[in-house]
Amino acid sequence: MSSATHDVLGIGNAIFDILVRTDDTFLTGHGMTKGAMALIDEARAAAIYAAMGPATEISGGSAANTIVGLADFGARAVYVGKVKDDQIGRMYSHDIRAAHVTFTTPAATDGPATGCSYILVTPDGERTMNTYLGAAQNLHPRDIDPGQVAASSIVYLEGYLWDPADAKAAFVKAAEIAHGAGRRVALTLSDAFCVGRYRDEFLELMRKSTVDLVFANAAELLALYPGSDFDGALAQLRRDVRSAVVTRSEKGCVVVAPDDVTAVPAFPVAEVVDTTGAGDLFAAGFLFGLVRGASPTICGRLGALAAAEIIQHLGARPQTSLKALAQKEGLPV
Amino acid sequence: MSSATHDVLGIGNAIFDILVRTDDTFLTGHGMTKGAMALIDEARAAAIYAAMGPATEISGGSAANTIVGLADFGARAVYVGKVKDDQIGRMYSHDIRAAHVTFTTPAATDGPATGCSYILVTPDGERTMNTYLGAAQNLHPRDIDPGQVAASSIVYLEGYLWDPADAKAAFVKAAEIAHGAGRRVALTLSDAFCVGRYRDEFLELMRKSTVDLVFANAAELLALYPGSDFDGALAQLRRDVRSAVVTRSEKGCVVVAPDDVTAVPAFPVAEVVDTTGAGDLFAAGFLFGLVRGASPTICGRLGALAAAEIIQHLGARPQTSLKALAQKEGLPV
Repeated sequence: MSSATHDVLGIGNAIFDILVRTDDTFLTGHGMTKGAMALIDEARAAAIYAAMGPATEISGGSAANTIVGLADFGARAVYVGKVKDDQIGRMYSHDIRAAHVTFTTPAATDGPATGCSYILVTPDGERTMNTYLGAAQNLHPRDIDPGQVAASSIVYLEGYLWDPADAKAAFVKAAEIAHGAGRRVALTLSDAFCVGRYRDEFLELMRKSTVDLVFANAAELLALYPGSDFDGALAQLRRDVRSAVVTRSEKGCVVVAPDDVTAVPAFPVAEVVDTTGAGDLFAAGFLFGLVRGASPTICGRLGALAAAEIIQHLGARPQTSLKALAQKEGLPV
Repeated sequence: MSSATHDVLGIGNAIFDILVRTDDTFLTGHGMTKGAMALIDEARAAAIYAAMGPATEISGGSAANTIVGLADFGARAVYVGKVKDDQIGRMYSHDIRAAHVTFTTPAATDGPATGCSYILVTPDGERTMNTYLGAAQNLHPRDIDPGQVAASSIVYLEGYLWDPADAKAAFVKAAEIAHGAGRRVALTLSDAFCVGRYRDEFLELMRKSTVDLVFANAAELLALYPGSDFDGALAQLRRDVRSAVVTRSEKGCVVVAPDDVTAVPAFPVAEVVDTTGAGDLFAAGFLFGLVRGASPTICGRLGALAAAEIIQHLGARPQTSLKALAQKEGLPV
């Protein structure tokens, strides 16, 4: 196994976030499930946007947010995702490269526009996402650079990739290359409804060891093992995958290693402004710990720190140096 | 004089803000004058953007920010400004209409892209703007709807309109229609360097009573009367224009009426995050007081309140209801 030149390579749907503060009646009035990610078509996107208030735009995309967080901690990070070469796609590409992430996926020159998520943030800080995949639908196995994947210590994949047709094949291709090069493969389950759509396939990825590490929140875990309570689902998870981390919002996280389970507390937060990216940034901190060889507790604390930063402002990209925050907390970076 | 169906109609350069937090060395390294607005061409825009960190995008434009603030207070507000029918122009149009502003200026279907300002925000909260006018250059007198102008109690114009070639003619046309209908015309001097470029023309607008009310900050006032100190410049301003308001940041403002001068204090602010839009939102509050027939002191307090809201977060569009803030402070809305 040759030495890795990248720490983490993330593959995901490249999505530009259009964020607006609203109230719960907007969600119910538009038939939205609070806290979930719903896939929408162009017509529904237009209808939601027309009804929304003035917005703030910030680049997003689940794995992209994680990869930007990793780069912010100081990791060598790579992103693979598909935008179109349009105004939004160019802003998206700017933002991820300006965050010191290697991003070389060619932008589409035709086909649908760069994907957008219309994100409604309620006064409790919860975010409800309506995602138009756009160009992200066209991520294809040929967008996977085998050399880049093989040179990355960890390949990180989002469950949302199961939605676009060809991205799944790109996912599997990347996982095979990674394992062939002796690297690790991590998967985030992304969203409870996403787990509902692809439960059997996600379980197969885990049981066949296509993935070595799974990130899930409590709702996703319960969606993976319907009918189980948290402890029952956790026990099944331990049988199905080598390693896992289950996040529980303000209750912290549970790190599942082959031999033991470690509970790690969250960081206290003054005010939850917007939970968009909480899970993504948790994964960033955790993976950063992992590539630095930290203990499960330190990995969990780094994850909790990054999640705490992201939920205290609008948008899923860090506004404060995560490296500096970690140093301030005495965490190794 | 028929009864007005709009309170304030604002005309300005429609500009999408691309905001980034940076440090002073970035400004000096790129030859920028801190706190100023510099006009840039496409090549310079590309160079600055390539060097900038990850950004946040929020609709802007000086007069547009004022008009959105007015609508937020509850005024019937109209905006006239030129975007292109591109992705950014469509976001811009969405944002201003979603703020309950009447916006009917046709978007350009060809020519340059929607204008953008690359705004660097330093740790002290000061903003330095680099504006690519783009489609805003093509605002033309035919974009002025005479009926809409005549039906507006106040026409509000930004000094920045002197930069694009045809916008000046649109400005003068609107002022003539407004006065013909017995309405008032207000002008903001926009920027000290803008005043430097057009001092004689701005003085002529004032002395010929093309404008009835002038908004300026202290730097703009001193640029209008070079060689004078603040008090000397204020005395000249009183001779040159019927009414004026001079803002002095944390020192509050001075309201100049034909018969007297009133000093009004600022609102205390916990932390200045980003001064982008401070003057624009001051004008929003002040004009709102004016259309409601409030005293100079109340007008100044409403302006100070709106300015205080806008400088406590990134971007020049309100994030909190200005109407609710004013009610909380016991100000009439």
